[in-house]
Amino acid sequence: MKIAVLGGDGFVGWPTVLHLSNLGHEVHIIDNLSRRWIDTELGVQSLTPMDSIQERCRIWKQETGKTLGFHLIDIARDYYLLRDWLVEHRPDAIIHFAEQRAAPYSMKSDRHKIYTVTNNVNATHNLLTALVETDLDAHLVHLGTMGVYGYSSVGAAIPEGYLDVEITNLEGEKKAMEILYPTRPGSIYHMTKSLDQILFQFYAQNDGLRITDLHQGIVWGTHTDQTRRHPQLINRFDYDGDYGTVLNRFLIQAAIDYPLTVHGTGGQTRAFIHIQDSVRCIELALGDAPERGERVRIFNQMTETHRVRDLAELIAKMTGAKVAYLPNPRKEAAENDLVVKNDKFLALGLEPTTLAEGLLEEVVDVAKKFAHRIDRKRVPAVSAWTKDIATRVEKDPERNRLKSVS
Amino acid sequence: MKIAVLGGDGFVGWPTVLHLSNLGHEVHIIDNLSRRWIDTELGVQSLTPMDSIQERCRIWKQETGKTLGFHLIDIARDYYLLRDWLVEHRPDAIIHFAEQRAAPYSMKSDRHKIYTVTNNVNATHNLLTALVETDLDAHLVHLGTMGVYGYSSVGAAIPEGYLDVEITNLEGEKKAMEILYPTRPGSIYHMTKSLDQILFQFYAQNDGLRITDLHQGIVWGTHTDQTRRHPQLINRFDYDGDYGTVLNRFLIQAAIDYPLTVHGTGGQTRAFIHIQDSVRCIELALGDAPERGERVRIFNQMTETHRVRDLAELIAKMTGAKVAYLPNPRKEAAENDLVVKNDKFLALGLEPTTLAEGLLEEVVDVAKKFAHRIDRKRVPAVSAWTKDIATRVEKDPERNRLKSVS
Repeated sequence: MKIAVLGGDGFVGWPTVLHLSNLGHEVHIIDNLSRRWIDTELGVQSLTPMDSIQERCRIWKQETGKTLGFHLIDIARDYYLLRDWLVEHRPDAIIHFAEQRAAPYSMKSDRHKIYTVTNNVNATHNLLTALVETDLDAHLVHLGTMGVYGYSSVGAAIPEGYLDVEITNLEGEKKAMEILYPTRPGSIYHMTKSLDQILFQFYAQNDGLRITDLHQGIVWGTHTDQTRRHPQLINRFDYDGDYGTVLNRFLIQAAIDYPLTVHGTGGQTRAFIHIQDSVRCIELALGDAPERGERVRIFNQMTETHRVRDLAELIAKMTGAKVAYLPNPRKEAAENDLVVKNDKFLALGLEPTTLAEGLLEEVVDVAKKFAHRIDRKRVPAVSAWTKDIATRVEKDPERNRLKSVS
Repeated sequence: MKIAVLGGDGFVGWPTVLHLSNLGHEVHIIDNLSRRWIDTELGVQSLTPMDSIQERCRIWKQETGKTLGFHLIDIARDYYLLRDWLVEHRPDAIIHFAEQRAAPYSMKSDRHKIYTVTNNVNATHNLLTALVETDLDAHLVHLGTMGVYGYSSVGAAIPEGYLDVEITNLEGEKKAMEILYPTRPGSIYHMTKSLDQILFQFYAQNDGLRITDLHQGIVWGTHTDQTRRHPQLINRFDYDGDYGTVLNRFLIQAAIDYPLTVHGTGGQTRAFIHIQDSVRCIELALGDAPERGERVRIFNQMTETHRVRDLAELIAKMTGAKVAYLPNPRKEAAENDLVVKNDKFLALGLEPTTLAEGLLEEVVDVAKKFAHRIDRKRVPAVSAWTKDIATRVEKDPERNRLKSVS
């Protein structure tokens, strides 16, 4: 297959590109390199030393003989470049990672909120419009997030995208209706993925586009079988307060003998998936494309759930680190349950890598190995969800105590 | 109250401005005048001769002694101008009409789809962000549309915004959950209003913004008590295939002795409201603001429903016009029922003007009076929902027969 990977220079995009290229597909990366620009803006860098995308592609060719295309296109801004590219290349499938993907970054300021909404909505919508305009029947696989549901369910398992409800009609009869599972996004970033769902529903219905939306959990792990093939193929590892996930920040804090900072009670339950499983899921989704005219196919892309404080204790036990409790900069429920259905990927043959078996590798091969590159000032999460919360967080004595010893 | 009317130069915006100014409020119009630019793009004009916004404001001052502010700001593009304006003026309420509002225009081409999404999403989101950033606790009243539900319900009455559903939790118990009534928008325009709903839900939940969303039906009628005060205060009347609603196009066709063109079977049921009732509803909504922390308050702003073919017959009877049936350029159900709850506005004191009593005035005082200004080539609806439909419409013999005699 000829496959375009939009956002193919990013954290999940890059290992996906290598995984699909290794399987024999013709892979083209389309990326505006915005993630690298945001590193520059924030003054942070990947823990793992990361080469330019052009150099990475050169090394892959050298190691495997396989060519990767790289095309610098900002799909949110340069609609006509994207359209012309699609006309010229006519890919069989398109994988769409090209969105700003950090919730804390999306909440930093008015500018960051606006950037995230404009970038993510336009990226998705330009792509959909371009597919219609070019009469291209490519299978579109989009990376969404389970976070659209906002972790505030009534304690039901999160189904794979849809919900059957009963509506009482004018004759007083109960009628079944299938609806998109109602979303309740908890950040601007998550909200844009909720907006994406509406865009997909419309274009599948009006234009018959074939779309798969993967509602992904938090991706952990750094290496895949393909990124391991050469040191210069290594994947990025974010540990800063905006882009570092809770797990990555715990790993880094442990590596520099800093307490693992849990926000609130740590009773938040999150869904996780290893990067190797993530790229495998994308392969499986590509092999299971919807028909034209079918509703959007939605998969939950995760393999296990954990409470944040349990994760902290797991890593503390593994490394001897302490745990510290700080006020939560996010506006969210202090404690939540989360049960997620992922039957579809399991049925397609996914064999999950569990945190229990993969975490030690992250501690030794990544966090400890590159500990000398850590900028400890970048680890704390500083983006607050509202101004009131920001004030409360700043005044917290425990936070200020940790700050003074760091 | 000090009130900002975003889009105050438009079809509903302008009579709203006059209505609120007449009630004694300090009213400021914020508009980028895009609707006038679109007239230029399409080569069409309002049937009623319409002065510049500056001239309209001058006449209002002359007639009533009341001052209207006019501020040329593109809220979708010029976030910082909007923010600065809010800081300077700190309005008590904001009425948000500033969106591209024609479904056929939104479906014309890739460029029009992109314009509609970018303009509408950014306008709404910039406004919400600016309210948070400036700590402004103004009541936001937004004009939405009933069309977000897509007229494909299971035959239940459209409630005012929310739906109670039952979800089976992990213990097998049924739990009640209130959700936004599921949308199924049928055009890019309607889809943007569905996106707006998600934006409102997020900002009400995260930032406590006080928001009222009015799900409006098709507005008909031209004059209000205030636009009647001087010929130069007259409201716009659109009859072209993109901006003219079905009712306006029937009125114009009758005035030029052209058959009333019904698309499809005419079995589509639509909700209607007279312009005088529309501005009254906005007044009522302003007086019924939600509390901080309350969910978005949603009203259905309509007073009656009619099938398109019944409307055609009503106007045919009144004027002697014939009715012609053409293929439908829209992708929609051929026939649909529509029952809408509008209890909230009735409870607040709305006294509807019915089509039966107001339509003759439109025929005589508007369509016939200005018939000499009609460009008959602009009446047919030409924007098709998909390329397949466009081809089918173009080949239709009845359409081509009518075209050749026009």
